[in-house]
Amino acid sequence: MNLLAVSGSLRAASINSSLLRAAARLAAPGMTVSVFEGLGELPLFNPDREADPPAAVGTFRSRVALADALLIASPEYAHGISGPLKNALDWLVGFEPFAGKRVAVLNASPRAHHADEALREVLGTMSAFVVEPASITLPLLGAGLDEDGMAATPPIALAIQDALSALREAVLLQRSATDASFPL
Amino acid sequence: MNLLAVSGSLRAASINSSLLRAAARLAAPGMTVSVFEGLGELPLFNPDREADPPAAVGTFRSRVALADALLIASPEYAHGISGPLKNALDWLVGFEPFAGKRVAVLNASPRAHHADEALREVLGTMSAFVVEPASITLPLLGAGLDEDGMAATPPIALAIQDALSALREAVLLQRSATDASFPL
Repeated sequence: MNLLAVSGSLRAASINSSLLRAAARLAAPGMTVSVFEGLGELPLFNPDREADPPAAVGTFRSRVALADALLIASPEYAHGISGPLKNALDWLVGFEPFAGKRVAVLNASPRAHHADEALREVLGTMSAFVVEPASITLPLLGAGLDEDGMAATPPIALAIQDALSALREAVLLQRSATDASFPL
Repeated sequence: MNLLAVSGSLRAASINSSLLRAAARLAAPGMTVSVFEGLGELPLFNPDREADPPAAVGTFRSRVALADALLIASPEYAHGISGPLKNALDWLVGFEPFAGKRVAVLNASPRAHHADEALREVLGTMSAFVVEPASITLPLLGAGLDEDGMAATPPIALAIQDALSALREAVLLQRSATDASFPL
């Protein structure tokens, strides 16, 4: 099972990016979490270029299409979704393989909820499926943990593993539902 | 009085950009509306570059600082603020001259309200001041009007002029309040 992890922050020391790298490290056997590194290379969304998009957009869309599910972790900027993340999502609006995609929304700051709610509204409008048991909030802001620290801190590591496990269950359930819809 | 107009769409035939150009044409004597053309040149927001930002960001911030008020017109993408607009706003978070700035939020589609509400939450969090009597919704989506058509269609042109007039009043009120706070 292949998961694509997308961080909404371009900060080098981003706690959200660290969280996703910790998830990659903690993934159970048979599950691969790849952290997408190209968010900062995406051009600003332009509907005129939607049908024949720049190469960076094509790469992003391919990565999304090939993933069984997505992990998103993003900071909240001014009570809103981060601009770079919303820009990336804009390129996926109407992209058929995104419809029905299972998504876990990770939140590194218990005090932030506006962007989390806005993100759910946007993802739902894009016909993605937010897996709530896999969408966890962790008290990481200000905790001073990098990915090593997260992976080595039992309650944090356990919560991440539980989230990954819930996301896997959701994907397996989706597969069996799809199989049932298309019997041989 | 100088207003800066920011469109949230990079589409060449954007109805929001047309609306702002119509506003520029309809501005009363003594008021100048400049449409900002550099949104598409802004890099994706990166907190690491916030203190010493790229030149395009410096230009944008200067234009904002010099404006008496802002006009924002933006499409809604997947029930959210357009990525390019949110990205531009991210570069203004914590930019001191933006605090207290009077802003009119124009909406070209009566059916869209999620992004409008999200934009108000973001602007308020950034300490800008949304001028509600100047923030109008116009039935322009699908109306087939370009800026010439908007300026030549009485109910549309009148509503735009009323919005500009309300924004001017808000700026004058702000100035007199500031004068009263700092008597000679």
